[in-house]
Amino acid sequence: MPVNFQACGVISITTDFGHRGPFVGTMKGVMLSRFPAARLVDLTHEAHVHWPAEAGFWLERSFQYFPKGTVHLAVVDPGVGTERGVLLVLGQGHLFLAPDNGLLAGLVERTGGTAYLVDRERLGSLRLGTLSATFHGRDFFAPLAAALAAGTLDPLAIGVATDDYIPQLIERPVRRGRELAGCVITSDHFGNLITNIEAADLAGFTRPVVKAAGRVLPLHRTYGDVPPGTLLALVNSFEVLEIACAEQNAAALLGLGRGGPVVVTEGGGV
Amino acid sequence: MPVNFQACGVISITTDFGHRGPFVGTMKGVMLSRFPAARLVDLTHEAHVHWPAEAGFWLERSFQYFPKGTVHLAVVDPGVGTERGVLLVLGQGHLFLAPDNGLLAGLVERTGGTAYLVDRERLGSLRLGTLSATFHGRDFFAPLAAALAAGTLDPLAIGVATDDYIPQLIERPVRRGRELAGCVITSDHFGNLITNIEAADLAGFTRPVVKAAGRVLPLHRTYGDVPPGTLLALVNSFEVLEIACAEQNAAALLGLGRGGPVVVTEGGGV
Amino acid sequence: MPVNFQACGVISITTDFGHRGPFVGTMKGVMLSRFPAARLVDLTHEAHVHWPAEAGFWLERSFQYFPKGTVHLAVVDPGVGTERGVLLVLGQGHLFLAPDNGLLAGLVERTGGTAYLVDRERLGSLRLGTLSATFHGRDFFAPLAAALAAGTLDPLAIGVATDDYIPQLIERPVRRGRELAGCVITSDHFGNLITNIEAADLAGFTRPVVKAAGRVLPLHRTYGDVPPGTLLALVNSFEVLEIACAEQNAAALLGLGRGGPVVVTEGGGV
Repeated sequence: MPVNFQACGVISITTDFGHRGPFVGTMKGVMLSRFPAARLVDLTHEAHVHWPAEAGFWLERSFQYFPKGTVHLAVVDPGVGTERGVLLVLGQGHLFLAPDNGLLAGLVERTGGTAYLVDRERLGSLRLGTLSATFHGRDFFAPLAAALAAGTLDPLAIGVATDDYIPQLIERPVRRGRELAGCVITSDHFGNLITNIEAADLAGFTRPVVKAAGRVLPLHRTYGDVPPGTLLALVNSFEVLEIACAEQNAAALLGLGRGGPVVVTEGGGV
Repeated sequence: MPVNFQACGVISITTDFGHRGPFVGTMKGVMLSRFPAARLVDLTHEAHVHWPAEAGFWLERSFQYFPKGTVHLAVVDPGVGTERGVLLVLGQGHLFLAPDNGLLAGLVERTGGTAYLVDRERLGSLRLGTLSATFHGRDFFAPLAAALAAGTLDPLAIGVATDDYIPQLIERPVRRGRELAGCVITSDHFGNLITNIEAADLAGFTRPVVKAAGRVLPLHRTYGDVPPGTLLALVNSFEVLEIACAEQNAAALLGLGRGGPVVVTEGGGV
Repeated sequence: MPVNFQACGVISITTDFGHRGPFVGTMKGVMLSRFPAARLVDLTHEAHVHWPAEAGFWLERSFQYFPKGTVHLAVVDPGVGTERGVLLVLGQGHLFLAPDNGLLAGLVERTGGTAYLVDRERLGSLRLGTLSATFHGRDFFAPLAAALAAGTLDPLAIGVATDDYIPQLIERPVRRGRELAGCVITSDHFGNLITNIEAADLAGFTRPVVKAAGRVLPLHRTYGDVPPGTLLALVNSFEVLEIACAEQNAAALLGLGRGGPVVVTEGGGV
C-alpha cells in the first residue's frame, strides 16, 4: 500500500485544556524539542471538557482548510491513563491523531480514510520515557505528532488498520413525519447555536423554517439580512444549521445550550 | 507611485471571534496553505464583539511594535455577507486589511497613509472559490492577507484609492469649559479602564485630576506609586488615560464599563 | 566561567495579561522586529493576576519540556515602573527572565542554577528607547528576551551574580504530628485543584489519604480509576498532589480555591 501522507510540518492542536496553566504550552515545548521546524496552529483549546464529540465535530469540518500533509492532534481524553487505545486516521492527505474515544470516528467517514490503532510496541524509536498517568497529551501524543509531522515516523508502520474503533458520539437528526429533529452541539463566542443538522438535510424541504425554544425562525443567508436583535436561522460557513441573533447572543436570549432540541419543519405560505 | 510596502512575512490577526471553535484556527490553516512561511501573531481575538471600534483603537496603537512590512488583518465584521466593502490601508510601511466599517479609519489619520477600496474583480489570481455568507475571515481575508504577506500580490494593483470610507467610530473627548469629557473605550484583563482621552489632551491642564463614577482620582505615573487597593488615574503605555486600582480591579470596583463617562478637570491645591 | 547557554531561538512566554487587548501581541511584535526567526510559545497568559507565585510554580515544573537553549520570559509585574530589579536565572541550559519579585526564586533552587541581577547600564546595545511606566513586558523584557534568544546578547555580560533576590513566595507544607498540611496553589480549566504538596512529600506515608473541605479522599493513579463524579486525589503530571473529581469540577464542587487547606494523613485499614 503506498503511503499517501507527505508531512508538511504543520501540526494543528485541538484540546479541552483551556488556557490556564502550562498544559498546551508544554505540549508545544515537547514538539519543538523533537521537531524544531514544526509549525504549530491552535485549532481550539476550548472544546467542551471531557466530551470528545465537539472536538471531533469541529475537526471534521476544519481539516480541509489546512495544507495537505498536516498532522491534526486532538486531545480530549477523559480516559487518560486507562487502557483506552490511540487512533490514527489517514484520509485525504491529512493525518489525525487522538485517543480512541469516538473523537475521530466521523473523520473516517468524512475523509473516506482508514483508521489505525496505534501499537505502542512499535514506538521504540520515539524513546518516550515513563508516561505520567494524567497527561498523555504531553508525554505520548506530542512526541508522536512531532515525529509524524517531521516525517521521521511512518504512520503505517506503527498502527494496525481497524474498523473496530469507538463510534461517532453525535447522533444524526431524526425524521419525524414532515419534521427533522436535531439538537444543539455547541455555541460559539457570539452565542450562535450550532446544530447537528447538515445543509444537505434541508434539501427535502421546500420552505424550511426552524423551531427552537418555542420560536419559529425563518432561514436566512447571513446575519446582516435581518435588523440587529432579530433571531434567525442560517446554514453557516461549516455547512450546518445555526441559530443566531443579529449582533446579539442567541444562546443567552433563548436559554439554549448543548443538547437543546432544534426542529426543521415546512414553512407555510408562498 | 512607488510601492512603499515591502512584505516581511508577518501577519498580525485581530478578531472578535474569541477562542471557542475553529474560527481563528481555520483562518491560520488557510494562510499557511497559501503562504507556508507566514509568521502569524495574534494581536487579540477578544475585541468587543460586533463593534469594530475597539479593534481599531488597539490596532492604531499597536502596529508600530511590529516589523515594517507586517500585514495587519482585522476581522470584526457584523456586516459579513452583505455588500459592505473591504479596505486596505497603506501607511508607515505597514499594511492594514479589514472590512470597511470604521475599523481602519483611525489608521489612515494616524499613519498619514492612504486607504484603498479593494476591487474584487482584480483578485482573480487568488482563485478564491465560493465565499461562505458568514465567514469571510476564512474565505476572503485570510487568502488575501496571505498573498499580501507573501509579496505575491501588489496591494496597489487590487485597490482604488479612496477618501470615501466609513469614518472613525470613536468620538473624541469634548471640552466643556475647563473640563474635558471623554469615556471608557474598554477594559483589560486586570480591570483597568481605558479611555478615549489621549496623553496630549492633558497638556492644557496644570494639575489634572480625573472624575469617574463619583470619585476624584489623582494622576500618577504607575500602579506602584500608590498602596495596593488605591484607585488612581495614569497615562498608560498606549498613551491614553487609564483608570486603575493598584493590584485590584477598577472596572469591578467602580462598576464602570464601555461608554462610561470620564472627565478631566483642574485639580486645586498648591 | 564558560557560558553554558546556547540559544536555540525558542522563547516561552508566561504572563498574567489574559487575552484581551494587544498586550501579549505587541510583545511578540517587538520580539519579531528584533529577532525575525524567533519561535514564540505561550506557556500561559492566565497566571493569577498580580501574584508572581503561580507563574513561577508552573514555570519551575514546565521548563524541562522545552528545548535546551530556550529563553523563558515571565512577566507578572505588579511593581512595573518602580525600582524593582530584573532577574536572569541560568540553569540546566535554560535561561529565565522575569522581574525580581519572587517569581524565579524557585527556579534557582530547582535547576541548581545561578541568579543574575540585570544591570540596565549594560544594555546599551539594545537601544531600548524610553520605557513606558506601565508595560515593561513590551518595552524592556521583550527586547531583552529577543536578543538573548537570538544569541546577540551574552547573558553573563549584562548581569551580576547574586544570592540577594526576592525569595520564593510559596510556602512548603508543614508537618504537624503525623499530618502534612499544605494548600491549594491554583486550579486548572477542569477545576482540578493543584497543591503545594510534592510527590516526594508523600514518601513518609504508608497509606496516605487527603483531607480537604471536610472530605477524606483516597489517593488514586488517574481520573479513570473511579466512576465519573467521584472525588479523588492523585499525584499529577507535574508531580504535585491534585484534588480532582472524575469528569467534573472539583473546585466548584468543593468550593475550594487558592490558599485552601489540604492535609495529607495516614489512612487506616489494610
